[in-house]
Amino acid sequence: MTTEARRTLIEAAQELYATNGVAATTPREVLARSGVGQGSLYHHFPSKRDLAAAAVAQTVDDTLGSAAATLDGADAPQRRIADYLERPRAATAGCRVGRLTADPVVMGDETLRGEVSRYFTELIELVAQAFAEQGLDAAAARDRATTAVAVIQGGYVLSRALGDDAAMSSAVRGLLELMEPRTDWARGEEQA
Amino acid sequence: MTTEARRTLIEAAQELYATNGVAATTPREVLARSGVGQGSLYHHFPSKRDLAAAAVAQTVDDTLGSAAATLDGADAPQRRIADYLERPRAATAGCRVGRLTADPVVMGDETLRGEVSRYFTELIELVAQAFAEQGLDAAAARDRATTAVAVIQGGYVLSRALGDDAAMSSAVRGLLELMEPRTDWARGEEQA
Repeated sequence: MTTEARRTLIEAAQELYATNGVAATTPREVLARSGVGQGSLYHHFPSKRDLAAAAVAQTVDDTLGSAAATLDGADAPQRRIADYLERPRAATAGCRVGRLTADPVVMGDETLRGEVSRYFTELIELVAQAFAEQGLDAAAARDRATTAVAVIQGGYVLSRALGDDAAMSSAVRGLLELMEPRTDWARGEEQA
Repeated sequence: MTTEARRTLIEAAQELYATNGVAATTPREVLARSGVGQGSLYHHFPSKRDLAAAAVAQTVDDTLGSAAATLDGADAPQRRIADYLERPRAATAGCRVGRLTADPVVMGDETLRGEVSRYFTELIELVAQAFAEQGLDAAAARDRATTAVAVIQGGYVLSRALGDDAAMSSAVRGLLELMEPRTDWARGEEQA
């Protein structure tokens, strides 16, 4: 009945959701993977929904935390945005959060759906702040941040569809190439 | 046993797949929606897999045909690309093809997965041709086309996640804004 058991259960659920989704994951599978006793599962998470809420919230927190570590750094905003876009990703596996938008259990549950919405709202805000530091006004920074996050999410969809991580790299390269001249121009640097 | 019955069955399957996915759609539901007799279903489609292959291929053909009608037109390539990106879309419903990348039945079947792969391969090629007409070399045109298709697919994911079609519009606006100055610069026009 320890906090350790709770954390182990959540981690097991996170891993299973990443591979199979929430709808297709049973409490029995979470138990088997975690190695925790059945009594502990029902103590910490009286229902499958309680476990799903905790595990999805943890995945959102983990993923936002790692994005913030890249986007909130001390480097120039252009560098931080490029670092975020170019982060190594297991693209053909799909985004752990983005894929939940196709999970019927997640989309049919107000709490779970709220977590997915919180993820994208906060992620777009993080990226928009970096674009705003580059001198874009708030509305333009928000549009460009939505474009950047869409490129990553779309890159996952294309990589899964084509069975090839190269689709993500190509989508990111195309976006970075588009962002370059505008940044130089905005900085007032001479064009070659 | 007519071709008309076959078409009606395929249309019913396409509509059900668009709403519920392939995995969650039963032959019984397709029969009920189509109004066609059970004998006709089994005559045209001996297995659920045969029906899915025909319906997914038809959705890919329909969607590619409508993209080609916009992208292959007589207008300037910049205009055709913008028209394609700004096409009205029921964004919160998700892409009829893109969502299949999260469907376990589709991803577990070589033929169905091949149809999804064909869709994105041909769509990226269509968009890349328009960028190539703007003077980009083949590799750059391909990257930019992958970015553009990713923005649409990611726009669907964000709109579903946030329950708001505005996310798609914002992602598209951000991309169009990025494409503008580069196009002017590539044309050699003066900057204001």
